[in-house]
Amino acid sequence: MQRIAVLTSGGDSPGMNAAVRAVVRKAIYHGLEVIGIKRGFSGFIEADMWPMDLSSVADIIHRGGTILRTARSEEFKTPEGRGKAFANVQRFGIQGLVVIGGDGSFRGADIFNTEYNLPVIGVPGTIDNDIIGTEYSIGFDTAINTVVDAINKIRDTATSHERTFILEVMGRESGYIALMAGLAGGAESILVPELRYGIDEVCEKLIHGYKRGKLHSIIIIAEGAGSGLDVGKQISEKIGLETKVTILGHLQRGGTPTAFDRILASRMGAKAVEILVEGYRKHMVGMIADKIVASPLDASFKGKKAIDLDIYNLANILSI
Amino acid sequence: MQRIAVLTSGGDSPGMNAAVRAVVRKAIYHGLEVIGIKRGFSGFIEADMWPMDLSSVADIIHRGGTILRTARSEEFKTPEGRGKAFANVQRFGIQGLVVIGGDGSFRGADIFNTEYNLPVIGVPGTIDNDIIGTEYSIGFDTAINTVVDAINKIRDTATSHERTFILEVMGRESGYIALMAGLAGGAESILVPELRYGIDEVCEKLIHGYKRGKLHSIIIIAEGAGSGLDVGKQISEKIGLETKVTILGHLQRGGTPTAFDRILASRMGAKAVEILVEGYRKHMVGMIADKIVASPLDASFKGKKAIDLDIYNLANILSI
Amino acid sequence: MQRIAVLTSGGDSPGMNAAVRAVVRKAIYHGLEVIGIKRGFSGFIEADMWPMDLSSVADIIHRGGTILRTARSEEFKTPEGRGKAFANVQRFGIQGLVVIGGDGSFRGADIFNTEYNLPVIGVPGTIDNDIIGTEYSIGFDTAINTVVDAINKIRDTATSHERTFILEVMGRESGYIALMAGLAGGAESILVPELRYGIDEVCEKLIHGYKRGKLHSIIIIAEGAGSGLDVGKQISEKIGLETKVTILGHLQRGGTPTAFDRILASRMGAKAVEILVEGYRKHMVGMIADKIVASPLDASFKGKKAIDLDIYNLANILSI
Amino acid sequence: MQRIAVLTSGGDSPGMNAAVRAVVRKAIYHGLEVIGIKRGFSGFIEADMWPMDLSSVADIIHRGGTILRTARSEEFKTPEGRGKAFANVQRFGIQGLVVIGGDGSFRGADIFNTEYNLPVIGVPGTIDNDIIGTEYSIGFDTAINTVVDAINKIRDTATSHERTFILEVMGRESGYIALMAGLAGGAESILVPELRYGIDEVCEKLIHGYKRGKLHSIIIIAEGAGSGLDVGKQISEKIGLETKVTILGHLQRGGTPTAFDRILASRMGAKAVEILVEGYRKHMVGMIADKIVASPLDASFKGKKAIDLDIYNLANILSI
Repeated sequence: MQRIAVLTSGGDSPGMNAAVRAVVRKAIYHGLEVIGIKRGFSGFIEADMWPMDLSSVADIIHRGGTILRTARSEEFKTPEGRGKAFANVQRFGIQGLVVIGGDGSFRGADIFNTEYNLPVIGVPGTIDNDIIGTEYSIGFDTAINTVVDAINKIRDTATSHERTFILEVMGRESGYIALMAGLAGGAESILVPELRYGIDEVCEKLIHGYKRGKLHSIIIIAEGAGSGLDVGKQISEKIGLETKVTILGHLQRGGTPTAFDRILASRMGAKAVEILVEGYRKHMVGMIADKIVASPLDASFKGKKAIDLDIYNLANILSI
Repeated sequence: MQRIAVLTSGGDSPGMNAAVRAVVRKAIYHGLEVIGIKRGFSGFIEADMWPMDLSSVADIIHRGGTILRTARSEEFKTPEGRGKAFANVQRFGIQGLVVIGGDGSFRGADIFNTEYNLPVIGVPGTIDNDIIGTEYSIGFDTAINTVVDAINKIRDTATSHERTFILEVMGRESGYIALMAGLAGGAESILVPELRYGIDEVCEKLIHGYKRGKLHSIIIIAEGAGSGLDVGKQISEKIGLETKVTILGHLQRGGTPTAFDRILASRMGAKAVEILVEGYRKHMVGMIADKIVASPLDASFKGKKAIDLDIYNLANILSI
Repeated sequence: MQRIAVLTSGGDSPGMNAAVRAVVRKAIYHGLEVIGIKRGFSGFIEADMWPMDLSSVADIIHRGGTILRTARSEEFKTPEGRGKAFANVQRFGIQGLVVIGGDGSFRGADIFNTEYNLPVIGVPGTIDNDIIGTEYSIGFDTAINTVVDAINKIRDTATSHERTFILEVMGRESGYIALMAGLAGGAESILVPELRYGIDEVCEKLIHGYKRGKLHSIIIIAEGAGSGLDVGKQISEKIGLETKVTILGHLQRGGTPTAFDRILASRMGAKAVEILVEGYRKHMVGMIADKIVASPLDASFKGKKAIDLDIYNLANILSI
Repeated sequence: MQRIAVLTSGGDSPGMNAAVRAVVRKAIYHGLEVIGIKRGFSGFIEADMWPMDLSSVADIIHRGGTILRTARSEEFKTPEGRGKAFANVQRFGIQGLVVIGGDGSFRGADIFNTEYNLPVIGVPGTIDNDIIGTEYSIGFDTAINTVVDAINKIRDTATSHERTFILEVMGRESGYIALMAGLAGGAESILVPELRYGIDEVCEKLIHGYKRGKLHSIIIIAEGAGSGLDVGKQISEKIGLETKVTILGHLQRGGTPTAFDRILASRMGAKAVEILVEGYRKHMVGMIADKIVASPLDASFKGKKAIDLDIYNLANILSI
């Protein structure tokens, strides 16, 4: 193996740059050449790529976002699109590909390997942390710290004002961000798409709290479990409590990556190169029990991590 | 003068605790006794007050919110309400009052002084920074740093993804937070209630930017200038650009106060006690040219600070 | 079991408050009464303890330090001291004890259990992360984020100024903070007590870097590997490079705990109560493979975690 | 005027990039060409300069340090050095120069104008905030926030541990950072080079505090007032109190600039271009009463701002 390529794909997540840096520097350490592909599979198809050296990744370990940019490519889902990408594989002499992204991106890489036999290694980068095969994906730790920081700030004013606050966070299908940030922030109610909730139940908890002297309350809701504005309206109609709503939106994808995400990304990026050199052909790297391990790529997108009910119950117990 | 009281009123703002600490400790330094009144004018009416000493304000200088809590009191707007408050003035022997809050709170204090002759000093605490008589009010600096931090995070993902983002911030009548945070964050468009804008104009600027190769754009909008979600919908309908919306909401009121707000609050709180001791009767303290000065209380609510058009134009020039 | 006690001991670490909160609320959830002991084993001996309820731990999850305070007790190392503590166990009807601290504190708890048969559960809280039986101890994640933030700031000025910077961090016997923060921060050299280094080697690396066009360099050193000021002096004498030294000191123990540390502390604190109720008598809780597990208490202090040489080598490769 | 140049000089400070951005974009807005000079006067002498356009300053407003780098040039202090620089002025057709830096840099610019008549405008950028002619210099606000954040962290562990902490901060001749950060952080003692202090006095204050029940104490010392390590040793010898020392060092120069510093830098950079265009020839810009004004350049280095004794006394009163 002499030349590999690297791309970031899907939604960006903080720490992707640290992963790119690790891939590039570890590859050069092993005597490989590295091609950086811009805008994910779109750039792969359009030959938007250029050779990277040690200094291409200088001064990026602490930057949010991804210097390679990212995009979602509809064209790569078609055989024609993948055919164009393979033409670039041949043209540039690419012998292995590292894909940093989520399960959708892994699926694309998996098909590409099946069709064209190019070794592909997935590095899990998504703030949702919903990928099977790793305890943590790159960006999740930074994202929940961003949410927890928002809860801290809201709590300051909540305590001063005796009100009910609703915080809508990311997670269309996964409530993992809401759950873990809610636990860490001490939110009184956590609403996630995986678990049904009734608005009556939420209202009862609020009333119960006020009766016990709780002067303010914070409800965290994953976008997939409903709209924060709607829930606020319903609470107001049902029990007359005024609520204030914050929608964090995409700022959850940004920010300087935490130490945890940088270390995770550095270790995973380096491991991806290692196993590529060792001859792995269709795998992802993941962190299990503080070790970086390889597992078959397709396992990652044949399911989603289920929400941890023990954690959910714990959050409820501790926010009494 | 032997005994004074202090309260926080209206919307809370970061740094109010530092102001309370300064009032209490400066007063004790001058040999005065200090009564802390809870929940603003509501607590004043309901005699929700207690004596404070040096340790009552230990370990609060860095805390967001206000340990005295705050509320908006409809009752204090009535002669009956103010009559009850005066009964407490007599009952507790209060000879002067420091009111930390915005212009609405100053108006209430002003009327109270007219009716009952109790010396009152206003300390401007509001994140809106819309009070005449001071260059800065307590909490504004922290609030715009919170907004700028949000812009930073959004920019990370904006740069990676080539999209348009909308950030809705506080300011029902004043666009000052949007303007100053937009300037500091390099937002491409700043929409404020003081200046009319057409959605066509916003769209043209976006299109113009994209033609010039600008791959992403951040629009900051004060709540008083419209809803971020609505503006996003309109942009999408008019020119087909997908937008992502963040609504910061009340988290802008929270957070550890910045050094600037703590210093401002410490100096203002101390000055309020000083001028009370010196015999001022109906004044506010303000920062002008880095000095803390006194001015008549009623000047503060006879108008609002106008938006600075030079700053607005500068923001436009620099975000080209 | 009807009544348990909880204390924090040894050096404080961010997240200890979240652990105390979890112990108290989980215990109350199980119908137990909880006694809070102040200043570690010193307060245990001196009966400096008081009953805690749900509201005793309100609004502390985000606070650095420990509301129970901490101390190192020489007296508890003596049979007399432990005898006095046992008298308090009987006096207050304590049937189980949760000790939040490091391996030194666990050793004390272990002896106490041997002598007096009181069930004790250790919760690992130390920024050093050197305790066997858990992948992470409470406070480590916050501490390395503090160090990484310092590296970020130093790098700004280093890049502008083309200089060599030395950052001395905590770790008398363990270089784990230096290693992981150095990896996350991209430090050029990492000096730890576990691995010998020659100053000549450090100088050569610096010269080699400058020859390759590297304009600045950051050296991170654990206090146990030498003094930052001394290393700076030696570099200056040997190769004439001016160095600037930062000594972080105890600020590494402070700060709002990260989401990771709060979640870890919440889960560990709750688990400690669970296993106490289940009848465990001399154990510690730890996180292994993202689960909270119990292991015998004495295993924790019969050795120290060794430094991970793979991580060390990776940091060197990636900071080329 | 058709072409101007800009450089950063002396110690870097956070916000310099925002100032460079404002100079470049405002100049282009006025139809001027802009030359960026690297490494201050050194690059001026060595013709290390290149043309800048709108995109040269994209994505830098939030970055610490300076993309133009900075250096201290001994050669520019000689007539020969300045002669070389003037040769570059002629070669590149430079008709005006903006110098972002401290009073030393202004002095150099002043001499250069006297000798060669090139219009020069100074923009005050230094964390020390010791320049006459402006209430604030760029970087000061960020620096004191960095110090205050350190005090917050130290206070967490101080409160838990009941100890005395010493924090050494920047300021060889000026105690302004120590004073303002000490006020904002609530430090118990503030030692500055402008005011003599006896170690006995410091010790007395400590003992007095402990007698009153104050369990911990934070002493902040400007480097020009002595070494933190020495003061710690003296306290230990005199009254037997163990102290813990933190030396912040150059990390005070780094970090993302605060909103205040970015706004200040944007306004000052733009004003510098404006007055250059208007024909000013040897001036500095400064902020007075929230307006950006011009004043003669030489006034800035004919003295240093004195320390504000009222603020010093206030800090003492409030930290009782």
